[in-house]
Amino acid sequence: MEHLQNQVVRAIKKFRMFPRSEKILLAVSGGKDSLALWDMLVDMGYSVDGLYIDLGIPEYSDVSGQKTQNFAESRGLVLHEVSLGKTYGVDIGHIARKTKRPSCSVCGVLKRYVMNMVADRHGYFAVATGHNLDDEAAVLMGNVLNWQTEYLQRQSPLLEAKPGMPRKVKPLYRLAERETAAYCVLRGIDYIMHECPKSEGATSFTHKEVLNRLEAESPGSKDHFLLGFLRTAPQLFPQSSSDDGPELQQCTRCGQLTTAEECGFCRQMARAGLDSLALFDSSVSPERN
Amino acid sequence: MEHLQNQVVRAIKKFRMFPRSEKILLAVSGGKDSLALWDMLVDMGYSVDGLYIDLGIPEYSDVSGQKTQNFAESRGLVLHEVSLGKTYGVDIGHIARKTKRPSCSVCGVLKRYVMNMVADRHGYFAVATGHNLDDEAAVLMGNVLNWQTEYLQRQSPLLEAKPGMPRKVKPLYRLAERETAAYCVLRGIDYIMHECPKSEGATSFTHKEVLNRLEAESPGSKDHFLLGFLRTAPQLFPQSSSDDGPELQQCTRCGQLTTAEECGFCRQMARAGLDSLALFDSSVSPERN
Repeated sequence: MEHLQNQVVRAIKKFRMFPRSEKILLAVSGGKDSLALWDMLVDMGYSVDGLYIDLGIPEYSDVSGQKTQNFAESRGLVLHEVSLGKTYGVDIGHIARKTKRPSCSVCGVLKRYVMNMVADRHGYFAVATGHNLDDEAAVLMGNVLNWQTEYLQRQSPLLEAKPGMPRKVKPLYRLAERETAAYCVLRGIDYIMHECPKSEGATSFTHKEVLNRLEAESPGSKDHFLLGFLRTAPQLFPQSSSDDGPELQQCTRCGQLTTAEECGFCRQMARAGLDSLALFDSSVSPERN
Repeated sequence: MEHLQNQVVRAIKKFRMFPRSEKILLAVSGGKDSLALWDMLVDMGYSVDGLYIDLGIPEYSDVSGQKTQNFAESRGLVLHEVSLGKTYGVDIGHIARKTKRPSCSVCGVLKRYVMNMVADRHGYFAVATGHNLDDEAAVLMGNVLNWQTEYLQRQSPLLEAKPGMPRKVKPLYRLAERETAAYCVLRGIDYIMHECPKSEGATSFTHKEVLNRLEAESPGSKDHFLLGFLRTAPQLFPQSSSDDGPELQQCTRCGQLTTAEECGFCRQMARAGLDSLALFDSSVSPERN
């Protein structure tokens, strides 16, 4: 337990993620990683509210939402909730079908949008997510296999804030998924064990499997791969620290920053015949206890 | 057959490896890749002599040497031969034990040295090796997993010549090992099928296995990984084209270029109690037919 907490402290310090004086928004899925992180940060005295996004995934969202609510209630923590079903009467499958895009891609656009929206509206200093070492190493493997330099350049446990967009942090990037699972067991945290059913066959699973094979052959490989990249990246992408990437402007519809005239989220919702602004108005944000 | 030859032509042209007017030295192991490459290049009208290095590996070197000699003789090709056993009465296992280094590492130092030596002495324009797509992708995977930037920077199908050191080329980098094997079968080339017994447990096998897993999941991955890297490398390492790497000087013992006072080969041989210069004098180089 102490080792795990120390790794999180080390991550926060190394990347100067956030100070104890600032309010953090944590994206919570009801899984082991986000609940373990919430538990750890609160335990360390950080001020962390949760954000749960209900995408209406059959046999998944109900359970994950319930576990998240139980966790927040049992500890008297603030939990923001945004629900696709309650706002539009549709689920993510509906949007995927209408837009002819994979669910994981629709989900990514939607979650990023909601995180930015809630953080901006409530003035959170940063949005934290529960991405762990296995997640980050798998993403890195995908980016390396395809030599996606623009993604490689941005892959970091810390993404700086931009006007209207909060800072993004991943304090679990040094912890393996076995470690966060063990943490939950030891702390008696009840989390949803199965993976999202929509993610079946996702390439990220193949990348995780391949990394597990390398880890089994040569223990420490995963760690070495990800942490080695983080050390090497400033040398490979010397411009990225000074360069802020493509120029951003306000979405003509919702106002969130985007590279296009209308942001990806507003375009996605329009293609599905839905009003993107309705979600903005619907989010349930309880008073802070 | 035509597709395979076209890929080799494309490799030679893309990297301007060598013109038809120059004499090439090909390092031949008796395996499918080097024999297929020799066959293809000669068939295309290139002037290519072979170099076989006998390391005295039990149950391996005799067979591989025999296959190489048979191939050369049947086509009337020139084959240079260097033998550890004939020169020193020892095998590579002896040097590995004396220097306390893995056989693969001893072999690498020795082969690189002999290739440079024979090419320099006989004035070959370039040394070609039979490294294929699988080999190069596996090396790339290893370099990426460890973020060995100095190796990544040098990983290319073409290494330019330096004073006293020939240009190095890998004309098979676009062909999978299944393709060179198929080529040998179709052309009736008799090659040694088993892997070097000393390489058992080598990490390169794990990397190949992992790449085969990715390829099975998503055909074209291997190709995409290696060729994508070759396209991206100039952007990741903009300095490498102008920078010639560490400063080189002549080995005080044998005269070959090195970063140290004595080259790695001379030091390795000295640690094994052997005279590095004896190998230089021993190489059997037949008159050109």
